[in-house]
Amino acid sequence: MEPRSGSIKRKVYFLSDSTGRTAESLGKSLLVQFPQIQFDSVTRRFVDSIEKARKVADEIEKVSRQESFRPIVIDTIVNSEVSEIIRASNCYYIDIFSTFLAPLEQELGVTSAHNVGHPAIFKEDSRAVDQAYMQRINAVHFALANDDGMHLHKYKDADIILVGVSRTGKTPSSIYLGMQYGIKAANYPLIPDDLESNKLPSAIADFQKKLFGLTIRPARLSEIRNERKPNSEYATLRTCVDEVRQAETLYRQYRIPYIDTTALSIEEIAARMIERANIDKKAVSL
Amino acid sequence: MEPRSGSIKRKVYFLSDSTGRTAESLGKSLLVQFPQIQFDSVTRRFVDSIEKARKVADEIEKVSRQESFRPIVIDTIVNSEVSEIIRASNCYYIDIFSTFLAPLEQELGVTSAHNVGHPAIFKEDSRAVDQAYMQRINAVHFALANDDGMHLHKYKDADIILVGVSRTGKTPSSIYLGMQYGIKAANYPLIPDDLESNKLPSAIADFQKKLFGLTIRPARLSEIRNERKPNSEYATLRTCVDEVRQAETLYRQYRIPYIDTTALSIEEIAARMIERANIDKKAVSL
Repeated sequence: MEPRSGSIKRKVYFLSDSTGRTAESLGKSLLVQFPQIQFDSVTRRFVDSIEKARKVADEIEKVSRQESFRPIVIDTIVNSEVSEIIRASNCYYIDIFSTFLAPLEQELGVTSAHNVGHPAIFKEDSRAVDQAYMQRINAVHFALANDDGMHLHKYKDADIILVGVSRTGKTPSSIYLGMQYGIKAANYPLIPDDLESNKLPSAIADFQKKLFGLTIRPARLSEIRNERKPNSEYATLRTCVDEVRQAETLYRQYRIPYIDTTALSIEEIAARMIERANIDKKAVSL
Repeated sequence: MEPRSGSIKRKVYFLSDSTGRTAESLGKSLLVQFPQIQFDSVTRRFVDSIEKARKVADEIEKVSRQESFRPIVIDTIVNSEVSEIIRASNCYYIDIFSTFLAPLEQELGVTSAHNVGHPAIFKEDSRAVDQAYMQRINAVHFALANDDGMHLHKYKDADIILVGVSRTGKTPSSIYLGMQYGIKAANYPLIPDDLESNKLPSAIADFQKKLFGLTIRPARLSEIRNERKPNSEYATLRTCVDEVRQAETLYRQYRIPYIDTTALSIEEIAARMIERANIDKKAVSL
């Protein structure tokens, strides 16, 4: 997170015994509620041994002596022996995992693997993980092979086909759908010839139910296209206004669901598509 | 999450006013600690209005009447008016957000945007978000354009160059590094000719410090290759054993850091590379 304006500065550690994604995403959604404070955050990943924890704890101690305020630690380390070492250092300590584990044990009426002394992270059934992993890898390769209207014959295997004018975010979105959710997403670019015809291009006409449209504010599209091809006809605001209007007309005409990607991240685009198109593959991702 | 063996079944809702990634990742890391229970989880995204919350609450009520146990709800909705509606339904309710917000307010000595009545999610500075977004999109396009040894001249712009024999996970890993972290990752496939020479291929010899090796257990590689090209020489265990041994020899000879991807997810591969290669771009992702 970039430092923001404000007088108070706080150092933040996102700690994890794995990739750090959970600590980062939860931590940031909390910190963003305090725009008055300037946070300087850093992620320490794979802190999965007492030795590694001691190294991080030493760093925290050092920072706490240098700064006006003690560091904030958002900890998602499962092993309590390891996290105890962090907790003992001079920091404001948030233990995500333990906070919810004890009450969950009570609700579920069983002791967690964690608390019966399982030393490492409890891994999910490896066969299911393998399958989910292969599904995701295959879906990424599918997105790559079916990018920008290539291999039209594979459209029948697609879970969803993204359509939109050039630079609306089709490629990153289709790859993300594969990477994160194991969803096979093809994409088809609406070129000026398609748009002029006022008809669904023949290549995708048979797959109307799988289509999902992307749109964007013309001014933003013009900026993005200018970055790619400065001062081209393709990047002019007029071209962008025309193409976007024609694409949206086509979506409405054929009742293709569509979203405006202007203010959305790739994660948000993908999640909204899953909701609207009802293609959730039930959490293949971990 | 797939149901696992066990006698007790519990329905789980991951709730979010956004993509649901935080609720899913934190929720799963908690639930995986209870292998005795069969969880049936579902994500409800973009629950950002009272109307949508009522719909989900109705669904929870219905499920609680049908099942032996009340549903478990992992809630990351920021707006407390919205989450109150969920909390009031018949469920075991975990409010991730509120749990940590009040103590954080105390530590920071300021009131959060959330609690001064900001109605929607507080958005980060849009200019910084835009820059981070474009960095990620550009990094994804970089990974796509520099996949599998194409465009050798772009290697000088890469933050990291992944090397490895065919099907060790180079492509998904390089795209993920771009998508999630805005890191420009190229990749170069070690083909049998490269491996026989016992020398670093000339295309990448100038960029030794950027190289990062991938390896994999030969039996697993053979499985993966067999899926792609069944009964090919390329997929035999003998070929895989030879190629992997030669690649690892090359890594050691040139002191190229490398990791075994056999048991790792894409997220873990990417995060380990960032740690080892020290290429963290400080959390461009949200």
